[in-house]
Amino acid sequence: MGYTVAVVGATGAVGTRMIKMLEESNLPIDKVCLLSSSRSAGKVLQYKGQDITVELTTENSFEGVDIALFSAGGSVSAKFAPYAVKAGAVVVDNTSYFRQNPDVPLVVPEVNAHALDFHNGIIACPNCSTIQMMVALEPVRHKWGLERIIVSTYQAVSGAGQSAINETERELREVLNDGVNPKDLHADILPSGSDKKHYPIAFNALAQIDVFTDNDYTYEEMKMTNETKKIMEDASIAVSATCVRIPVLMAHSEAVYIETKKVAPIEEVKAAIATFPGAILEDDVTNQVYPQAINAVGSRDTFVGRIRKDLDAEKGIHMWVVSDNLLKGAAWNSVQIAEALHERGLVRPSQELKFELK
Amino acid sequence: MGYTVAVVGATGAVGTRMIKMLEESNLPIDKVCLLSSSRSAGKVLQYKGQDITVELTTENSFEGVDIALFSAGGSVSAKFAPYAVKAGAVVVDNTSYFRQNPDVPLVVPEVNAHALDFHNGIIACPNCSTIQMMVALEPVRHKWGLERIIVSTYQAVSGAGQSAINETERELREVLNDGVNPKDLHADILPSGSDKKHYPIAFNALAQIDVFTDNDYTYEEMKMTNETKKIMEDASIAVSATCVRIPVLMAHSEAVYIETKKVAPIEEVKAAIATFPGAILEDDVTNQVYPQAINAVGSRDTFVGRIRKDLDAEKGIHMWVVSDNLLKGAAWNSVQIAEALHERGLVRPSQELKFELK
Repeated sequence: MGYTVAVVGATGAVGTRMIKMLEESNLPIDKVCLLSSSRSAGKVLQYKGQDITVELTTENSFEGVDIALFSAGGSVSAKFAPYAVKAGAVVVDNTSYFRQNPDVPLVVPEVNAHALDFHNGIIACPNCSTIQMMVALEPVRHKWGLERIIVSTYQAVSGAGQSAINETERELREVLNDGVNPKDLHADILPSGSDKKHYPIAFNALAQIDVFTDNDYTYEEMKMTNETKKIMEDASIAVSATCVRIPVLMAHSEAVYIETKKVAPIEEVKAAIATFPGAILEDDVTNQVYPQAINAVGSRDTFVGRIRKDLDAEKGIHMWVVSDNLLKGAAWNSVQIAEALHERGLVRPSQELKFELK
Repeated sequence: MGYTVAVVGATGAVGTRMIKMLEESNLPIDKVCLLSSSRSAGKVLQYKGQDITVELTTENSFEGVDIALFSAGGSVSAKFAPYAVKAGAVVVDNTSYFRQNPDVPLVVPEVNAHALDFHNGIIACPNCSTIQMMVALEPVRHKWGLERIIVSTYQAVSGAGQSAINETERELREVLNDGVNPKDLHADILPSGSDKKHYPIAFNALAQIDVFTDNDYTYEEMKMTNETKKIMEDASIAVSATCVRIPVLMAHSEAVYIETKKVAPIEEVKAAIATFPGAILEDDVTNQVYPQAINAVGSRDTFVGRIRKDLDAEKGIHMWVVSDNLLKGAAWNSVQIAEALHERGLVRPSQELKFELK
């Protein structure tokens, strides 16, 4: 009666949290298959107290699978997600590979669950930094329209995976315990595992996440631009981002500036955010209440505060948006998409394979 | 023949760096007096290899002093700077107390040294976060005009003094070595020693620097707004800031968005910044070259990179600005003001005491 759910990339920072979110989900689940690369296959993880051996991901891993959650990198999704669809599964992909594909809905359930209705077997989960911004801004866009967004991010290293967390902790220990000058630290991973040079993150702020594109913005910054337009279904919204990694392990913070189409009274903006699903208003500066990364860790919600008028632009508003990048930014949003598919009766095989088998 | 220079707050994070900057300065200095509160009086510091005992600051500390550098908090400047002026000294004050006083020039020497010409005995050194932004933006304002600024800061804890540095290191050690959850850390200083509640900075980002004002911006944010207008001598420049403390010990980073009055070609903007005194262009994203806090520590320069057009606003430009907050942001800018006073023949007693003796 219940579903068979596969998690591809089960041993990673996001994968392990997907398992936890599935445990806590109200999805009817009969069986969980944990899949990974050859490096992690054979490891034993737990689902609801039960040992499950992680298996190697192959083209034949998806027989009998109803829902497959992918979070093992773009190349793994590119190769295996179409086989999962061919085998009759619905894929929720947490990588960037399919996000701009017109046949693939890009979904933050609170914002555009309706986009699931016409899926072709693959649904993309947006980038972590985009998701939390969408939760904060959708209630504002809905009531007053959205002209433009300028966002500066303060992103946690866990967005670059467990190896980046390990690197950060090692670097900080070398400075604090061994007196190494941060400038002299050795780095292998950050700012981007796939770029040529690597820099220390301990006591630093790195204005590079992912690699650079031709227009001098990074891919991370362009994800925020392009994904916002797709999720909000409005290509006219102007979005420019500066994405920065800081020495925080978990939870992204964002300084978000917006201009609305109509003048939005601040108290009404606060009320709209406070009543929006998934958003928590934390805004009482008299009592020093505003969102903090360390408080957001482990929560599925997006915390919004420091909401205030721009000092000059009549339609300008600033806010501070914080969320756990591994939960709402990845694992929880993916499982939440699976829940939405179930509620809408959309966990069903695709009729026509629209994705290339490689 | 040379000057007697007093440093008030000599034992602090900024004060000790003022002594170093004086050692390296080309000012003709005969004698250095080191002054502090009763808590630090009696300590022995060095100036050019010579032991100097720190003395208690009193109303009579300034007899024979030509130049007095203050960095011991606003209340100390409020009380003692007028006595220094009365005694015939020129005061360079690194606190916020006199910055908006119309009788006090607020000076970043590369930008508005001319404002020194009509001083009345006290010159204010701007806030650290403002100074580095001024160095980056003045060459742009000069050529293309400046309509507005939106800035998000990534500020080092040393801006809150040595006790904040100690607190940060202690918190990080408790998490890394003792496994304490960052949420459970005890904090006494940050975000602001003078506010009621204190929060951990380890693995966190605190969207509060200084206390809040009535308009829901913090004083730190309003300093960036008001000081920019005064230094650039143009109240029409729109400035809104979000000031954030991150777990970095030294050097502030800033994501700065500007709109110019005339369209500014990016390559010309880079050239203007590269040739501006005190500014270093670090902008070659193909080779992952951009300013980093850990590289700026110990330098007097302001590093500017990630310069790029806004994706939608024709006159919009984004950049990333990094500088050592204790040097250009405080100690060096103060000593640089003293050098500029000397070069302009302005180290002379004020004719009329415009400041209240308390």
